[in-house]
Amino acid sequence: MNQYWSARARALTPYVPGEQPRDRKFIKLNTNENPYPPSPMALAAIREAACDTLRLYPDPDCTTLRELLGATYGLKPSRVFVGNGSDEVLAMCFQAFFDPDRPILFADITYSFYPVYADLYGLTYREVPLDEHFALPLEPFLEPNGGVVIANPNAPTGRELSLCGIRAILEANPGAVVVVDEAYVDFGAHSAVELIDRYPNLVVVQTMSKSRSLAGLRVGFAMGNEELIAALNCVKNSFNSYTLDRLALAGAEGALRDRDYLRATSMKIQNTRECTAAHLKKLGFVVTDSAANFLFVSHPDVPAKELLDGLRQRGILVRWWDKPRIRDYLRITVGTDQEMQALCVAMAELVGEK
Amino acid sequence: MNQYWSARARALTPYVPGEQPRDRKFIKLNTNENPYPPSPMALAAIREAACDTLRLYPDPDCTTLRELLGATYGLKPSRVFVGNGSDEVLAMCFQAFFDPDRPILFADITYSFYPVYADLYGLTYREVPLDEHFALPLEPFLEPNGGVVIANPNAPTGRELSLCGIRAILEANPGAVVVVDEAYVDFGAHSAVELIDRYPNLVVVQTMSKSRSLAGLRVGFAMGNEELIAALNCVKNSFNSYTLDRLALAGAEGALRDRDYLRATSMKIQNTRECTAAHLKKLGFVVTDSAANFLFVSHPDVPAKELLDGLRQRGILVRWWDKPRIRDYLRITVGTDQEMQALCVAMAELVGEK
Repeated sequence: MNQYWSARARALTPYVPGEQPRDRKFIKLNTNENPYPPSPMALAAIREAACDTLRLYPDPDCTTLRELLGATYGLKPSRVFVGNGSDEVLAMCFQAFFDPDRPILFADITYSFYPVYADLYGLTYREVPLDEHFALPLEPFLEPNGGVVIANPNAPTGRELSLCGIRAILEANPGAVVVVDEAYVDFGAHSAVELIDRYPNLVVVQTMSKSRSLAGLRVGFAMGNEELIAALNCVKNSFNSYTLDRLALAGAEGALRDRDYLRATSMKIQNTRECTAAHLKKLGFVVTDSAANFLFVSHPDVPAKELLDGLRQRGILVRWWDKPRIRDYLRITVGTDQEMQALCVAMAELVGEK
Repeated sequence: MNQYWSARARALTPYVPGEQPRDRKFIKLNTNENPYPPSPMALAAIREAACDTLRLYPDPDCTTLRELLGATYGLKPSRVFVGNGSDEVLAMCFQAFFDPDRPILFADITYSFYPVYADLYGLTYREVPLDEHFALPLEPFLEPNGGVVIANPNAPTGRELSLCGIRAILEANPGAVVVVDEAYVDFGAHSAVELIDRYPNLVVVQTMSKSRSLAGLRVGFAMGNEELIAALNCVKNSFNSYTLDRLALAGAEGALRDRDYLRATSMKIQNTRECTAAHLKKLGFVVTDSAANFLFVSHPDVPAKELLDGLRQRGILVRWWDKPRIRDYLRITVGTDQEMQALCVAMAELVGEK
């Protein structure tokens, strides 16, 4: 930091993503990536787009991709916004819908990028404590506020809030926008997309990084009422006309055309998740109910940091935060059956050593 | 616009990019794209990266790409920042270096995204009028200010400011950051990169969209002192951890490895530019001296809007702005020789009709 930094930059504490080892020798269960490759239709579409037309700008309106997303989710394309990963889409939601004079609400234990966005854009916020089982209490979200952001299923806990709960929050906040961040919804949770018709204050954000195995492609999207999508476009077009490159557009379009693939890989991951959860419970772990592609686990006898380090020594990366309330927990991405067997073997060693 | 828009969003007037026709039947000289395809090494690298590893997040630090850019420009990688097109990089410069209480300076006729960024981030600015030949007057930039942004060569005029002028501005502003936007520098202008060692307040922004024929890939970069690059990283990591996808990284890296290709296509475009300029002058056009891949032209007898419409009818797109001081001008991208011959034939018809 030096004299040339803006006051804004000086005040920031950036988000820290999970480690991306460059040598790739680990079983990587630390950033909720999908263990299965992207749809072959996505890869074929990208290879086809890797041609002379890359000299031309992409479609700034991402028309074809928004049409396909609309068809997939039963929405008009005018109700769909796309961006460079759901992180960018979320950042634009914070700019488009929230004002500094009214605090926004989100959980105390949730995606840790939310307070970073709030700081970046000079917004105030209140963190609502989850209960002791990491469930979201509804009451605090029914008080007057300047907007609500809910990860559903929540991260890093994996817990799902019912659509009934989402509706209660939407109805209590007719004057504020409720952003439901559904990055992990495709692994068995219920999407709020079906509520868009009824609630003009609902924005649902999803990503192709997890369920569609395209973390490397950076494609996220938001769905909501036309007026809300127009606000996102207004912000986006004041920042970067072309946020999605031609290859990301092609790959995302290819992936959306392959619906069976999504279903098949998601089912495999859900099955592996349940088997792993059962196995870890047998080893004495407390395992939070997860509707996502990860498990949030704690062991009564062995500190999480010790497990983190022990797993790393055994070539397995998982995620741990040195933060109040969750420093006894690890977040473990659901990999292949083979990877999870290796995890369980390592965990048995680590908790057996006690 | 409705009740759910933030005050910020309500106040915005987004940037409007040049038309991207979806049917592709035009000779497209309206968005300064390169008429030649990207390097075969870029395309090969992308095809190779279109594989199973797309399920994994990209390197958030873009290490290999920054190393290659550093090697290309004689800088340590810690002096290089990359982003999702130079528009995103510029937006991050506005956030990282400028504060609302001190106005930033840029020309009245320049890249029209600058005032949009300023509005998006709540900054104040003063537009410095270019002289009657569209040259940048130095004096106003030597007054106290909160930062300077200079497109060099300038857009849409194509005029170059000498490095001597850039140095004068850098020296007069030791307390403010000077951003030199060199989107078009590879078409024969002089880069300020060589000044980075001497001026801790200099940031040079470039793009792979124009000279490297990769507008469809969205890769821009900034170069400057480590402390300035750290500020950009701080802002970027508070916004989106992964702004460049794996394919954009691969393509950009491939393009940088092919230095001969850049030189060859740039020379062709410079030759075509000079031939076209000479031809248009013979038709009576006033042609501003251009160091970029476009020409800024005006005809004494035929209004620019009439030429714009006439060219469009003849299947040729160019760019025109309905703005004070430049509404008599057209900005014409330099295409292939064949495309520019078609342009000159159409122009001869349009000005001959008078």
